[in-house]
Amino acid sequence: MVRAIDEHTITDAVIDQMSGTKNERLKEIMDAAVRHLHAFAREVNLTPDEWIQGIRFLTATGHACTEYRQEFILLSDTLGLSSLVNSLNDRRTIEDSTKSSLLGPFYRQDSPTFELGQSVAEGCPGEEIGVYGRVIGANRRAVANASIEVWQPDENGFYDLQKQDPSEMELRGRFFSDQEGRYFFRTIKPRGYKIPMDGPVGDMVRAQGRHGWRPAHIHFLVGAPGYREAITALYMADDEHIDSDTVFGANESLITEPKLNAPESPFGSLPAIHFDFTLAAAQDAHSGRVGADPAQLVKKAEEGH
Amino acid sequence: MVRAIDEHTITDAVIDQMSGTKNERLKEIMDAAVRHLHAFAREVNLTPDEWIQGIRFLTATGHACTEYRQEFILLSDTLGLSSLVNSLNDRRTIEDSTKSSLLGPFYRQDSPTFELGQSVAEGCPGEEIGVYGRVIGANRRAVANASIEVWQPDENGFYDLQKQDPSEMELRGRFFSDQEGRYFFRTIKPRGYKIPMDGPVGDMVRAQGRHGWRPAHIHFLVGAPGYREAITALYMADDEHIDSDTVFGANESLITEPKLNAPESPFGSLPAIHFDFTLAAAQDAHSGRVGADPAQLVKKAEEGH
Repeated sequence: MVRAIDEHTITDAVIDQMSGTKNERLKEIMDAAVRHLHAFAREVNLTPDEWIQGIRFLTATGHACTEYRQEFILLSDTLGLSSLVNSLNDRRTIEDSTKSSLLGPFYRQDSPTFELGQSVAEGCPGEEIGVYGRVIGANRRAVANASIEVWQPDENGFYDLQKQDPSEMELRGRFFSDQEGRYFFRTIKPRGYKIPMDGPVGDMVRAQGRHGWRPAHIHFLVGAPGYREAITALYMADDEHIDSDTVFGANESLITEPKLNAPESPFGSLPAIHFDFTLAAAQDAHSGRVGADPAQLVKKAEEGH
Repeated sequence: MVRAIDEHTITDAVIDQMSGTKNERLKEIMDAAVRHLHAFAREVNLTPDEWIQGIRFLTATGHACTEYRQEFILLSDTLGLSSLVNSLNDRRTIEDSTKSSLLGPFYRQDSPTFELGQSVAEGCPGEEIGVYGRVIGANRRAVANASIEVWQPDENGFYDLQKQDPSEMELRGRFFSDQEGRYFFRTIKPRGYKIPMDGPVGDMVRAQGRHGWRPAHIHFLVGAPGYREAITALYMADDEHIDSDTVFGANESLITEPKLNAPESPFGSLPAIHFDFTLAAAQDAHSGRVGADPAQLVKKAEEGH
């Protein structure tokens, strides 16, 4: 029987046509996606002109994605979706582990390994600080030989990947915790920076009257066998955009600041940030991460066809 | 004050940050988009792995958009969004005008003009039929000199734009109604065809166990000064996919078939489709259309930057 398709019947017609989806989880996700997409269009009474503007925006966002840039992740970040997916993922952990923050587009897997106490900022101008603490399990037991990868922008708010020769690495490095789970290294105090504002997402952010800044932060990826990888960042309390992060990554529990004469600091009089990373056991792990190497992403997307 | 961002507070945090949007309608649309996007992620408890698959899918969809192909429109079509936007637009007309259907990707503005009664299928193999009727206003008054553009696929289900030399036009043409609002022309009976299945949307449709076919149809774009443009299509009742159109365009009121000795047929014994197009007055017009020339779309999207 032929269906009368109108604004009331279309949603069921689509869900009915998708009902042969073999993968149950895909079916669940697409059913919900269609229901919410349609509810959105009905709620705002979307016009054909507005629809075509949306198509143009998504097309431009796709075309802005290259081996070195992931505009759809930036869109997800600026609409708070990445932060929400992180929060949902954190909630799956029963134990009280360190909160996730965005991986962002500047992570790379091959950063150089340093000895504890060394600086990742050798030769970089800026205000030197120390960072130290412990990697522990939810039972507060030390996690020895945990891998701690750190990366951050320079004094002008740029990551090495954004510079003229992206093969030269700076302000990134990997450390391993000692037998007591301790880690400590030196760097410079990071600076805040704007998200890339020269693409469609920048246009959107400007049209929304948003400033586009992220508060200063240092990225961390902390992992050890048997534990769930922690992707997070520490945010500088004195940054003027600390309560208006354009990508909603700066969370209360991740805000800190370098302090003089911090307790048990291995850095003496150097201002130092003290932060302990608490890892969840791998048994509740959903190992995925929100954010990824854009080059890898784009390649995988293309290989899909 | 720094916010504790979690799965409950993130939506308000985003809406708060977008509250400076100057364009009230953009604000309304983006607020609703964010609420529905977040509600979707919460409802399905979206994992980071699933999120990244979504990013990859959207990126691949963007990369599949070229001057000659609009994969995001195809995605909108296959998820029933285009059909919904058409229905919402039809509802804005108080008068009882002809229902809209999808413009699709094969419309072009420069199709050749024919005299009433001529064939748009000269030299094309296939089963010849006639098409005739009137263009009328909602008051059933004749609309003289209305422009009636028609386009359709050939006997094998291909449009001229899909052939080796897209500059050669066939099976498309423009007619003008006479003083009584009458139009009539000859063509061949159209065949059903599959949507393009070699891109990310094809992958989705296959994963959902859908056949990918559209029932046979002839496209119409009918317009006259003072009236709202009607973008629609007539669907062949005997097509085996008439009740499972992959893009949800085939609607009850647009389903018809060539009949022998149809009443008042100018074609004598030739099987003919009889259909009257009822145009709404321009005063309730939202002139936009769902669907557009992909080349123009892509160019406009790129010019945006």
